Amino acid sequence: MKPETQNPKPETTFPAGFSAAGIACGLKQSGKPDVALIVSDRPCAAAATFTTNVFAAAPVIFDRDLLARTRGNGIRAVVINAGNANAVTGEQGLRDAAEMARATETALNLPADSAFVMSTGVIGHPLPMDTVRAGISAAAKQVSPVGFSAAAEAIMTTDTVPKTVFLQMELGGRTISLAGMAKGSGMIHPNMATMLAVITTDAPVAAADLQKSLHRAVEISFNRISVDGDTSTNDTVLVLANGAAGGENLRGDELVQFAGALENVCVRLAKKIARDGEGATKLVEIRVTGAQSETDAVRAAETIATSPLSKTALFGNDPNWGRFLAAVGRSGAQVDPARASLWLAAGDTRMQLVGAGQPLAFDAAAMSVALAANTDIFITVDLGIGTAEAVYWTCDLSYKYVEINAEYHT
Amino acid sequence: MKPETQNPKPETTFPAGFSAAGIACGLKQSGKPDVALIVSDRPCAAAATFTTNVFAAAPVIFDRDLLARTRGNGIRAVVINAGNANAVTGEQGLRDAAEMARATETALNLPADSAFVMSTGVIGHPLPMDTVRAGISAAAKQVSPVGFSAAAEAIMTTDTVPKTVFLQMELGGRTISLAGMAKGSGMIHPNMATMLAVITTDAPVAAADLQKSLHRAVEISFNRISVDGDTSTNDTVLVLANGAAGGENLRGDELVQFAGALENVCVRLAKKIARDGEGATKLVEIRVTGAQSETDAVRAAETIATSPLSKTALFGNDPNWGRFLAAVGRSGAQVDPARASLWLAAGDTRMQLVGAGQPLAFDAAAMSVALAANTDIFITVDLGIGTAEAVYWTCDLSYKYVEINAEYHT
Repeated sequence: MKPETQNPKPETTFPAGFSAAGIACGLKQSGKPDVALIVSDRPCAAAATFTTNVFAAAPVIFDRDLLARTRGNGIRAVVINAGNANAVTGEQGLRDAAEMARATETALNLPADSAFVMSTGVIGHPLPMDTVRAGISAAAKQVSPVGFSAAAEAIMTTDTVPKTVFLQMELGGRTISLAGMAKGSGMIHPNMATMLAVITTDAPVAAADLQKSLHRAVEISFNRISVDGDTSTNDTVLVLANGAAGGENLRGDELVQFAGALENVCVRLAKKIARDGEGATKLVEIRVTGAQSETDAVRAAETIATSPLSKTALFGNDPNWGRFLAAVGRSGAQVDPARASLWLAAGDTRMQLVGAGQPLAFDAAAMSVALAANTDIFITVDLGIGTAEAVYWTCDLSYKYVEINAEYHT
Repeated sequence: MKPETQNPKPETTFPAGFSAAGIACGLKQSGKPDVALIVSDRPCAAAATFTTNVFAAAPVIFDRDLLARTRGNGIRAVVINAGNANAVTGEQGLRDAAEMARATETALNLPADSAFVMSTGVIGHPLPMDTVRAGISAAAKQVSPVGFSAAAEAIMTTDTVPKTVFLQMELGGRTISLAGMAKGSGMIHPNMATMLAVITTDAPVAAADLQKSLHRAVEISFNRISVDGDTSTNDTVLVLANGAAGGENLRGDELVQFAGALENVCVRLAKKIARDGEGATKLVEIRVTGAQSETDAVRAAETIATSPLSKTALFGNDPNWGRFLAAVGRSGAQVDPARASLWLAAGDTRMQLVGAGQPLAFDAAAMSVALAANTDIFITVDLGIGTAEAVYWTCDLSYKYVEINAEYHT
């Protein structure tokens, strides 16, 4: 795998054969871009994972059905709107989601059953379909091979920055590109959150293989981040592979390498979401090692990641390991209190605070200074009773989180 | 059962035979009272429930052992300190907890194995035992039949008000009294929280019956409140019954009536804790009906109660039912999206916002005004698929919560 290009020249790293657009149609009161289109010049294999929330939004219900009906074949486009989630909108919502797909297919001159739909925004309000239809028409006229960033901006809600990731690799003599975009900063939690992600690639991959690769990639990326423990009605991760890089469908070792690249893209997108958590001032990486099972390691890490007491301590630059351990202790993971150890790190400062269940003397003032001076914080808990481990990402809990969510009125 | 006396004259409603004291010994930097003693003039039957946190604090380990050793018989006293939790303090912590019990027995001239110990405060610091010993000696000299309120003040940490509840009832021709005190405002969550409660009663109850009655009472009170989803290392609910009201141990119908009174005391204490949640401006009662099981009803209610998005919406006086339903949808409870209904009430205003899965037109502005004007908010969700129900209490999530927990430094 080549070193990743952080600021790629579009013409060299965008996956071949994809175009995109992002425009403003008036769904957002701010007047910012709110409709995005991504389209492939040839049929794609598609794979997706969806929210587990019982109140799945209309576009999620539509997409699940489309994926089942097409078995992930023949997909050409995805249309995304921000500003209205089309969730808890009853039968009308389902009709509107289907019409968004149809309008996209018509505007782009695509066959039926070739367009996915995503929506994000406020819950419980019917979509203003005249506005949406006009937006899709306008966006269709603007799709271009360098429109990916404009699309990434149009899917933002409370996000403060657009989130894109690019990756290029040599595979069996050809160059393969992946491009990912994501949105989400509140209501972020497995499985999953008001979190949308679209990953395009020009790799040739069979739909079934793509679904398997995506499943594992999501498991260790989007399902390992939490901003506030809330799981939304609309979460969707979609990957489209159009094979424009050429050659036969990937198999064996090449498929494994591709799956690794997909994981890399998903983890980097997920971390961008956690870092941009509503009101966040820090990205916190929680690593639990020495667990009896990966499930236990995830449980322990997730409980720290969702503990308001731990998250406010981090906002306060307080090395309050008692709160972290108390979270581990109620997580349900197998824990032997006499074996647990804990480290905290920020910048060049790394200190062990607990060793085999005993508090250790440490320079709390210096640790607090390091926490204040860095935006990337690392908590490591070694349970000392096994070999399994897991990594989880979260952010701190600040005044700003409360402000954003108390003042975002329905 | 007689109508409850809200502001009882101490001499008439304190359970007979109990004395108490609360004094300052210097554990709290503020100089406020921090050691409490409660003592009975005769042996009590005792029952208790403890935190499920794996990192159970030393006093919890000590008390569990004492309860097992004595089978809840022959108990005379409980000593409580605030300012230091004696948690994650290793072997030294266990020795210190045992010494607190011994010092209490010595100072009050009680037999061995007759005193429980509770601690609350910061985690991971050894108790300053010279200070604690002096505090216990001083408190022992001040115990009096009207010292209950002083004790309730001495167990406070971030609590803004002391929490006491009194109840008197006629039972088989005699008057029985119960008095409860509790502390806790952060790290409040089943099962349970930095939450301590002591309930004294002069009813004659066998230890085994007392334990059964307490178990159910805690289940529907202290285990149905959440301030921030964090469960502490020290949570303990203790009930002492000394039989000073006279007569044989309660049985049959009288025991059922007593258990009802104990539930009443526990629910009222639990609601006081939720209302005094760190930074709380509102007490929120969440009732889920029409569930397939009580477990499902609790799950759905608890998920709303712990959802930061729901709690910030309540702080912002926003009737954001989408957040409440989204929480129900990820709770794991059996839900049919087409059957769920939701009501919101505050003061004289009660509105249905969702009916059988469909958003209803309602006066959002008027609802918001009602939310702003009242401190008691009621959310009712009817799942419409069964007959089970549950009630859960929480508070809103405010700037003040973040301030308290980001600035409470270790």
